[in-house]
Amino acid sequence: MKLATYKDGSRDGQLVVVSRDLTSAHYASGIAHRLQQALDDWNFISPQLQDLSDALNAGRARHAFPFDPAQCMAPLPRAYQWAGGSAYLNHVELVRAARGAEVPERYFTEPLMYQGGSDDFLGPQASIRVASEAFGIDFEAELAVVTGDVPMAATPEQGLEAIRLLMLANDVSLRHLIPDELAKGFGFFHGKPSTAFGPVAVTPDELGDAWAEGRVHLTMQVSWNGRKVAMCDAGPEMRFHFGQLIAHAARTRRLRAGSIIGSGTVSNAGIEKDGRREWPKGYGCIAEKRAMETLQDGAPKTGYMKFGDTVRIEMKGRDGESVFGAIEQEVVESGAGA
Amino acid sequence: MKLATYKDGSRDGQLVVVSRDLTSAHYASGIAHRLQQALDDWNFISPQLQDLSDALNAGRARHAFPFDPAQCMAPLPRAYQWAGGSAYLNHVELVRAARGAEVPERYFTEPLMYQGGSDDFLGPQASIRVASEAFGIDFEAELAVVTGDVPMAATPEQGLEAIRLLMLANDVSLRHLIPDELAKGFGFFHGKPSTAFGPVAVTPDELGDAWAEGRVHLTMQVSWNGRKVAMCDAGPEMRFHFGQLIAHAARTRRLRAGSIIGSGTVSNAGIEKDGRREWPKGYGCIAEKRAMETLQDGAPKTGYMKFGDTVRIEMKGRDGESVFGAIEQEVVESGAGA
Repeated sequence: MKLATYKDGSRDGQLVVVSRDLTSAHYASGIAHRLQQALDDWNFISPQLQDLSDALNAGRARHAFPFDPAQCMAPLPRAYQWAGGSAYLNHVELVRAARGAEVPERYFTEPLMYQGGSDDFLGPQASIRVASEAFGIDFEAELAVVTGDVPMAATPEQGLEAIRLLMLANDVSLRHLIPDELAKGFGFFHGKPSTAFGPVAVTPDELGDAWAEGRVHLTMQVSWNGRKVAMCDAGPEMRFHFGQLIAHAARTRRLRAGSIIGSGTVSNAGIEKDGRREWPKGYGCIAEKRAMETLQDGAPKTGYMKFGDTVRIEMKGRDGESVFGAIEQEVVESGAGA
Repeated sequence: MKLATYKDGSRDGQLVVVSRDLTSAHYASGIAHRLQQALDDWNFISPQLQDLSDALNAGRARHAFPFDPAQCMAPLPRAYQWAGGSAYLNHVELVRAARGAEVPERYFTEPLMYQGGSDDFLGPQASIRVASEAFGIDFEAELAVVTGDVPMAATPEQGLEAIRLLMLANDVSLRHLIPDELAKGFGFFHGKPSTAFGPVAVTPDELGDAWAEGRVHLTMQVSWNGRKVAMCDAGPEMRFHFGQLIAHAARTRRLRAGSIIGSGTVSNAGIEKDGRREWPKGYGCIAEKRAMETLQDGAPKTGYMKFGDTVRIEMKGRDGESVFGAIEQEVVESGAGA
């Protein structure tokens, strides 16, 4: 099933069930008002949501209405846990090269993961509000999972079993703030403002065979100012699958229901062509593009996002239909106090 | 007023108002069931809680019952934002010295802060469950504030105005996991498992004159296995006050109601005595004690916590009464899957 959260003036919005083809929706009010409620009591509530989903997909839902992604908040407008992995090693290699940082030794055997902030997520069409273009505004096209309760020291298999929902994410980064911040030794803070999520969260069964071994075997499509910049395969090059990322996050603590774990920027390795390295699948963030330029020609030439720039992130199923709906955001200057 | 969250089998518990002397309590059910609800709508709900608090303190509350801190969850058992500052520079200096890490240059002018996980906080008497003593189990006696909504790029003054509640915290650290983790460049994750909080959260007015310039001018008392190890003054040596910490956290993003910002371990500088450096106020975490030993004698001799060890953290007002109640925790071995 597919679930979304409609704006209603409240902090958590209203849970709606969305049809598989994303054309119609139905309030879940009789079952649960908020997505977190459903996650808190998944075994009891999700079958009821599934029934509504089945009715909606069969055209039998009594109060269905046309689905409008512009009315969506993030599926979880605020969450209790957001941890961003870096499961695509090509991204890690490129971005670290771009900022002149070394790649940690163990990154082939242990996921990189940062603790993110989760109190203020952005909906799929919310503006990316930033005070200054000088911060180096970048998008990051990612997948994320929402978990149930995960015990401390869970195995990757337990991690996989705990996956309730998948989402599309734009893990906005402020690149020029990151090197200084990481130099302080305490990880990301200012460099990772509010993350945006796609309109609907979907249960893994919605992906059919494309969901295999904890990975999504579909293409991540990214457009920047209307120009397609990525058609990256999210499957085989995901070094650590979502069950592994969850197990990593739970190594010394429990994860509670509604925890969101991100994949990191979906990224595919380059190829050698006529003695030159190329990346025909494109780039899921501008930092990668700049790293590619640096590796090719010694210096980056593509700048980061400007005010008014747009980014569009979407993933289509094997049937050619949008799985999550699209993230479509514009960068907007935020005044102080905004 | 003083607020606590009673266990009721649910994830968020039941909001109770607690008397100033911590002897009696009253369910806030008629006003708000959960503390987050009150924070979401503070201007409307807090006056009603204040009325109940006044009645309770005057002995006029109709269904008061004896307050039992053993029944408390963390005031916010799960939160949307937890950011840990390091506002006491003496702690930063000592701990970095202990692990052989350099102190970042800008730490006198800009707070250190890490993004913490907030989905699974511990109540004041909850066991600290850890898989292995080899992780280097440590307590950290801290203060924390709970904010209302804070705009992006808020000033320190706006930060101060946004403070709704103060709490006592034990920011448990797994010291031996931290150096490797920080070497990966993405900050804390495994090294900072669930944080514990004192029984009651209090509004700043409960501190009277001891709340001044965004700092708490009272003594943080810590006992380890029944032995007093800290009587640290939380006031003057807090380099960055809570308004500054909040402004730092909000530099590139909004903070939403219910965000928790920690002070870092309360720590007082040492003195020179007979050519030897001493720290007569003691230590708010074992890492500091080990750093002191290293600076005095070239090597640490105090080990970290063992299974069965206890820690007690409390702060008393100028009237000698406990402000927040005590954190009293035992370290317990967690089996896999616990």
